[in-house]
Amino acid sequence: MGNRTYNFYAGPATLPLPALKRAQEELLDFQGTGMSVLEISHRSKEYDNLHNEATALVRELMSIPDDYKVLWLQGGASTQFFMVPINLQVSGKPMEYVDTGEWSSKAVKEAKLYGDVRIVASSADSKYSYIPRDIEFSPNAAFAHITGNNTIYGTEFQSLPDVPPDVPLVSDMSSNLMATVTDVREFGVIYAGAQKNLGPAGVTIVIIREDLLDRVPASVPTLQKWKTEAEKNSLFHTPPVFAIYICKLALEYWKEFGGVSKIEKVNREKAKILYDIIDKSDGFYKGHAREDSRSLMNVTFTLKGAELEEKCVKDGLSRGLVGLKGHRSVGGMRASIYNAMSIEGVRALSEFLEEFREQHQ
Amino acid sequence: MGNRTYNFYAGPATLPLPALKRAQEELLDFQGTGMSVLEISHRSKEYDNLHNEATALVRELMSIPDDYKVLWLQGGASTQFFMVPINLQVSGKPMEYVDTGEWSSKAVKEAKLYGDVRIVASSADSKYSYIPRDIEFSPNAAFAHITGNNTIYGTEFQSLPDVPPDVPLVSDMSSNLMATVTDVREFGVIYAGAQKNLGPAGVTIVIIREDLLDRVPASVPTLQKWKTEAEKNSLFHTPPVFAIYICKLALEYWKEFGGVSKIEKVNREKAKILYDIIDKSDGFYKGHAREDSRSLMNVTFTLKGAELEEKCVKDGLSRGLVGLKGHRSVGGMRASIYNAMSIEGVRALSEFLEEFREQHQ
Repeated sequence: MGNRTYNFYAGPATLPLPALKRAQEELLDFQGTGMSVLEISHRSKEYDNLHNEATALVRELMSIPDDYKVLWLQGGASTQFFMVPINLQVSGKPMEYVDTGEWSSKAVKEAKLYGDVRIVASSADSKYSYIPRDIEFSPNAAFAHITGNNTIYGTEFQSLPDVPPDVPLVSDMSSNLMATVTDVREFGVIYAGAQKNLGPAGVTIVIIREDLLDRVPASVPTLQKWKTEAEKNSLFHTPPVFAIYICKLALEYWKEFGGVSKIEKVNREKAKILYDIIDKSDGFYKGHAREDSRSLMNVTFTLKGAELEEKCVKDGLSRGLVGLKGHRSVGGMRASIYNAMSIEGVRALSEFLEEFREQHQ
Repeated sequence: MGNRTYNFYAGPATLPLPALKRAQEELLDFQGTGMSVLEISHRSKEYDNLHNEATALVRELMSIPDDYKVLWLQGGASTQFFMVPINLQVSGKPMEYVDTGEWSSKAVKEAKLYGDVRIVASSADSKYSYIPRDIEFSPNAAFAHITGNNTIYGTEFQSLPDVPPDVPLVSDMSSNLMATVTDVREFGVIYAGAQKNLGPAGVTIVIIREDLLDRVPASVPTLQKWKTEAEKNSLFHTPPVFAIYICKLALEYWKEFGGVSKIEKVNREKAKILYDIIDKSDGFYKGHAREDSRSLMNVTFTLKGAELEEKCVKDGLSRGLVGLKGHRSVGGMRASIYNAMSIEGVRALSEFLEEFREQHQ
């Protein structure tokens, strides 16, 4: 593995190497079945075990209470943008969203097709560089929606907003699932595309409080109801077998690693290393996110001028630091340091950034 | 690979071994990137090439005309059951379906949520053992829908029904895509979950005549419109990267193998071997499907009594012949012999069935 690069892409993202090695070892013969896991029936007992183990690991690592269901779905978080309003809207009640960037806006766009949407707070006035404070959701809201972490702008809710009793909080945690210790009880629904913090692209996890499954009208198509897969342990139709398998291997790794509290500890160390580089660079590197809103997952920053930024990305690439170009909405650079990015990778990046600054300041 | 079994499951199903070996070889380092294909960004040039190559191979192998789009989606054929009516319905026109079994019925159920559905023909009267003849679709139908092959009952359209001019024919080809030479011009839309004839579970292919993309109302959620992914080359949001990658490796194998005409030739040989065993068994094996409706993909048959059937499944298993139990709706046995099931596998099964008959007749 001498040539393994450090992958700072915003997602799909780096995965734990031991999980990849295990997948490679058993790719032609899954548990002595004489078949690849890419070929096994989703109705076989081997798959059933794998499926249930993956779910149990999510439950264990996130301490999910018994009255919450864990679903493995397809279609990415973008599909949840319409499934959330379909499943949670209540006639006559507003659906309330906090607008913290592009992903929130996309979620809002779909919700508007289903009823009255209220944007209760937004940081659009400042290029989404912060998470709004003192957010006030209505007591009669159907639900309250946030985007837990914003990959493009590099901002993250560092604490949850207050939500009135009986209003379920819904969070798109695609980019911060299992990144810090989460009290699932604070949420009605958590959804997350797997391809940043959990596994490969092609599977989406939805964690939902059971009582919320009954809101959906009968007239909704079968697979647009969370209830359908909730009642069938996510086996109503063929699940994305291999993607769930890779999640399971990664989850086994994280359990062995020390669980979410250990992941959080390392994530904080990793983020501190990079934000320190920015803060001590005397303006050479300029962070996009306001300090109180900084993401542990996506560190966004600009340099003086597009030419210098381009050189920085290119020089990084030549040192095996891949995917550092910022999103076009912010420009500059972005280091995505999800759970599976090692502290060694972050140190390699920080050393490079220091050298680059010394050369060009 | 001494212990590789012959996998006769109805899907997910067996894949070409060279494709699996290639995936294994490069699982930790995709094309020298220092990353697994499970980790690469869907916005990277490496993925872009892979994605476009997979599409080009589908186009080449199926001779898809230029005015058809090829989409890579998620959610399985079951998701297309609601996407077909959403995207193709026309106010005031009936949506017309042929009912040839469980999958047709599920498609009908979703369509009914969107408007007037007419079942123009059904073989429910005979436990779906045949494909109806002389089907008459209305000239003013919004579309005409068939299930090209019926995995559960082992029946298949051996020729396409007549469809009035201007009525697009829609076929669920999940279980017979690329199994025989298909004139794509005869269809408005073809859709197929990949996990039987194309690749692993987790990706769905939709082939659609471009002019049909404009029927969808503006008020439909973004990802429920085929048009959204059609306009973005299936990269509007993160695609199921790894599943498409495996499809691409399999498609390369099929191209090398000799293309769809060669696949069809071998499929006919494979099916003949098994149907001959049934027909010459003097009633020991009884085919479920009527001769003129027999599937090339799923050979369904019963034996005299559940005990004998159970023994047959069990004895087959002990010889490395896996997944032969029939679906509960038909009972008995089912050998799914999709494109990637080798003729050697079919011969091994036929030898076993002959021996079993000699022992128990």
